[in-house]
Amino acid sequence: MRTVLFAEILQQPAVLSRLVTQRRAAAFDAAARVRAFDPEWMVIAARGTSDNAARYAQILFGVRHRLTVALAVPSLCTIYDSAPRMRRALVIGISQSGRSPDVISVIAAGRQQGALTLAITNDPGSPLAAAAELCLPIEAGEERAVAATKTYTATLAALAMLSAAWIDDRESWGQLHALPAAVEGALAAAGDAEEAAHRLRGAERFLVLGRGYQYATAHEVALKMKETADVLAEPFSFADLMHGPVALVKPGLAAVLVAPRGRADADAERTATLLEERGSAAVVLTDRPELARRGVARLPAPPEVPEWLSPIPAVVPGQLFAHALAQARGLNPDQPRGLQKVTLTR
Amino acid sequence: MRTVLFAEILQQPAVLSRLVTQRRAAAFDAAARVRAFDPEWMVIAARGTSDNAARYAQILFGVRHRLTVALAVPSLCTIYDSAPRMRRALVIGISQSGRSPDVISVIAAGRQQGALTLAITNDPGSPLAAAAELCLPIEAGEERAVAATKTYTATLAALAMLSAAWIDDRESWGQLHALPAAVEGALAAAGDAEEAAHRLRGAERFLVLGRGYQYATAHEVALKMKETADVLAEPFSFADLMHGPVALVKPGLAAVLVAPRGRADADAERTATLLEERGSAAVVLTDRPELARRGVARLPAPPEVPEWLSPIPAVVPGQLFAHALAQARGLNPDQPRGLQKVTLTR
Repeated sequence: MRTVLFAEILQQPAVLSRLVTQRRAAAFDAAARVRAFDPEWMVIAARGTSDNAARYAQILFGVRHRLTVALAVPSLCTIYDSAPRMRRALVIGISQSGRSPDVISVIAAGRQQGALTLAITNDPGSPLAAAAELCLPIEAGEERAVAATKTYTATLAALAMLSAAWIDDRESWGQLHALPAAVEGALAAAGDAEEAAHRLRGAERFLVLGRGYQYATAHEVALKMKETADVLAEPFSFADLMHGPVALVKPGLAAVLVAPRGRADADAERTATLLEERGSAAVVLTDRPELARRGVARLPAPPEVPEWLSPIPAVVPGQLFAHALAQARGLNPDQPRGLQKVTLTR
Repeated sequence: MRTVLFAEILQQPAVLSRLVTQRRAAAFDAAARVRAFDPEWMVIAARGTSDNAARYAQILFGVRHRLTVALAVPSLCTIYDSAPRMRRALVIGISQSGRSPDVISVIAAGRQQGALTLAITNDPGSPLAAAAELCLPIEAGEERAVAATKTYTATLAALAMLSAAWIDDRESWGQLHALPAAVEGALAAAGDAEEAAHRLRGAERFLVLGRGYQYATAHEVALKMKETADVLAEPFSFADLMHGPVALVKPGLAAVLVAPRGRADADAERTATLLEERGSAAVVLTDRPELARRGVARLPAPPEVPEWLSPIPAVVPGQLFAHALAQARGLNPDQPRGLQKVTLTR
């Protein structure tokens, strides 16, 4: 069965190609303002899928700009009337619709204090875009599926473009222009995703594990699985797993190991060994053949993607897996129970 | 069956009483240094249970001191060799053992940069205490159970003491001195916890829901359940629930609603209604009788605790529930599978 969700997963190379070419100037404009402001640190307000994009920003701006990115606690603004001081911070609001009141309230508080504020949204006419001083539109076109896919990868790309324009190096932009082809390559995982879903269709409890640049990917794959496939899938870093949740690992608890080649390789291998030793059925998402062989199923990630951009193609096999798992479990991935496309929370 | 874990849960009033009286001067010394440093923002490095204490700090220092608390991304220091700039931050490391290399590495990086660094630990002779400029020992005594309980509430109390000394008001200290009695009162939930565990003993998938001051409590109760009771229990704020995971809510998915009286009451009521309408079996942890009646089981929280301290007694019925659920499922809560007391991660 072809779904709206599947169609939007397939649109991702085209969306990214449009974004990287058409919004390059906007990224440079925003970066010039950011450079002049010279933030001491960053705050990002976001919910759901957009919050997972914020997790990518934590490692991206940490590694490439040596900045700490705090995930905002919106209830400070909306429930406790205590907006924290953000005067020396770059404050970013991420929302596909640009309409969630909690995200807008953090941006409004930051702007009032004199922080530099930036909206990343799919709707440049939204209240969020109006509330922020700067706006980077993600150019994803209308997203009809309730589960966000193309707006997630486009948001990650917008953050990466801001970083590339901020550093202003040729190499980064060359790598960004190669991104649509890498995401196209990642779509080849569709067949493997169906096999993995068939193999794991009886599982209802998953851990989804990743670290460093792939911590965000683990969160986003887990969210897609919860939204569409009616399975409880909880994300952890390889390190956090060892501080408690490891007690759950045994036959009967499935796992998705998100481990494209990168600086966390050694941790990923130790985690694969742990899953094997304890008999947990693992799906391994990687471009490393020797690691892929250690799971009961594999999701191929495209090879030779620079690590700072790798979360963008790496999430695609995970999206395909969540979609296939929903169908293997007899569900329609276009109809998550009781979820609307636009969620307004305070 | 009496367990080490249960014995340590019972020790909590005595630990808190000792901490609040014996370490008041240490809290004032640390607060004087913090006030003189005048941080722009805060960073906390922690793992597992200590990371949940950091989530309490996010709301505590946000509401009472208007500061943003960023949870550190240790892999920036340990895997990517890119310690972020923290020059104007108060950097806190929380670790029961004081020995996890990742937490120490963040403190070391902060201190080298000239940030003010503080260790909160159960071992003032630990490497973490040595790495930080300031130390607040939590005075919990040896913790033998693998699942941390008394060190969690003592860490929360140490953070609250820092806040009280920083503000330096009589009212806060009066409330802190009343805390051991409130925790004593919370222990009366033991019978209800056994009933709730008996009622839910067949459930293997839980959402654990809380917001604002109780977001940390939801995380910590979920972690105790995963560590001891072999159930997958994922924590969400009431708001994050609506951005995706709500698709899972139906009969067959159980829930724990953490909702002592507070500013998030209206959100808690909406969430209770949602759980009822969708037929999810909910255990309700609250001091509000009308809300308690809306679950299939209840965990009484002690009444009349000021909201800023309420997460300390509120976690206790959750600890008792996790312990009882493990026993109801035929497990020994003192022996989580493959978990050691001290976990060293990079």
